[in-house]
Amino acid sequence: MEFPSKLIEAAVNQVSKLPGIGKKTALRLVLHLIKDRPENTYALTEALNKLRSQIRFCQSCNNISDTEVCHICTSQKRERSMVCVVEDSRDVMAIENTAQYKGLYHVLGGVISPINGVGPGDLKIESLVGRLSNGSEIREVILALSPTMEGDTTAFYINKRIRDLPVKVSVIARGVPVGGDLEYADEITLGRSIAARTVWTD
Amino acid sequence: MEFPSKLIEAAVNQVSKLPGIGKKTALRLVLHLIKDRPENTYALTEALNKLRSQIRFCQSCNNISDTEVCHICTSQKRERSMVCVVEDSRDVMAIENTAQYKGLYHVLGGVISPINGVGPGDLKIESLVGRLSNGSEIREVILALSPTMEGDTTAFYINKRIRDLPVKVSVIARGVPVGGDLEYADEITLGRSIAARTVWTD
Repeated sequence: MEFPSKLIEAAVNQVSKLPGIGKKTALRLVLHLIKDRPENTYALTEALNKLRSQIRFCQSCNNISDTEVCHICTSQKRERSMVCVVEDSRDVMAIENTAQYKGLYHVLGGVISPINGVGPGDLKIESLVGRLSNGSEIREVILALSPTMEGDTTAFYINKRIRDLPVKVSVIARGVPVGGDLEYADEITLGRSIAARTVWTD
Repeated sequence: MEFPSKLIEAAVNQVSKLPGIGKKTALRLVLHLIKDRPENTYALTEALNKLRSQIRFCQSCNNISDTEVCHICTSQKRERSMVCVVEDSRDVMAIENTAQYKGLYHVLGGVISPINGVGPGDLKIESLVGRLSNGSEIREVILALSPTMEGDTTAFYINKRIRDLPVKVSVIARGVPVGGDLEYADEITLGRSIAARTVWTD
C-alpha cells in the first residue's frame, strides 16, 4: 500500500500490530482519528499510556488490579476455600458475569504453548503452588481453562504439579452448550457429553 | 461489563469509540497491550499523537500530505488537465493502486449526508470550483464517488455547481464488477449495466 504521508504510514504500521487488525482496518481507524477532533486522539493515547505505565497485578492472584491486592482477594464475602485457575483476566470477568462462583481466582497469564514459545516457567504456576502450600485455607482447585490443546496441556501440567498437595482438583464441565443445537455440536463434544452424562435430578 | 481496574475501563471506553470496535474487541486489544512490552504501547501512542498534531492537508487538492502541497499536485508527470473528485484519501490510494489514472485529484473530505449532518458547506466543493475558475488548465472533472445515495447526491450537487464552467464532467463507469458472478449482481447494477452497454472492441 502506498501512503500519501509518512505520518499515516507510521500510524498504520503501529495500529496494524494489534491482534486482528490488518493494514486496511488500521488505515480506516487512522483516517477516522484524523477526521475526528484532535482531543479525541489525545484522550485515547493518554488512556493507553496511563494504563501501560500504571497497571498493576494482584500480588496474590495475578489478576489486573488498581491496588496491590485485588478486590476479590481482599473481599470478606468470597469463599476462601476454593480457587479457580484461569488463563487471563477476561476469563475472570466472564466467570464473574455468571454470578455462579464465589471463590477466589488464580490468573496464569497464558497457557503452555510450545508453538508460541510459552513454557510452564512463563506462567504463574509456581505462585499457585505457593498459595496452596504452608497452611493454606484452599481445599479445592478448579481448572477453568479453554478446552483446546494448549488449555488441556496446561491443566495436565498443573494437575501433575499439585496432585500430591492436600487439595481436590476439579475441571469445569464440558458438554453441549446451553441453547446450542445438538446437530451443530461437533462429534468430539457430543461424544464426550454422552460419556460424561449425569443422573437426572429434578 | 465489570472491569477489574479503572485504568482498563478508561482505556476500553476510549478504544471502543473507534469505528467498528465494540467493548469486547476493545478489551481484547487493551489486554494485548498490557501483555506486550510497554515500549510497544508507547510507540503506538506516539505515532498517533504525532499523526494528529502534525498531519497536513494539501492546500490544492485537500489530500493528506506531509508538505503544504502534496506530491501528486507538484508532480511534473501528472496530466494537469483532469481532476478526479473523490470522497477521501482512501479513494485516492485505491485509484493510485490501479495505475490507470495520471491526472490530479480533489478530495472532498466526505459526502453530502443529511442524516449525519453533513451539508455541501462541510465539503471542499467551493475550493474545487475555485480550482476550475480563473484560467485553470483543467478540462475534465471525473466524479469518482461511491454509487450510494449520498455519493449520488453529492455528484448531482457538484455537477449542478460546475456545469456552467468550461469543463467536461464525467462519472466513473458502473456495471458488473470484473470477476463477479452475474447471478450474484443485484438487479439495479445488472439492469444499469445492460442499459449502459458499450460496443465490443477487439
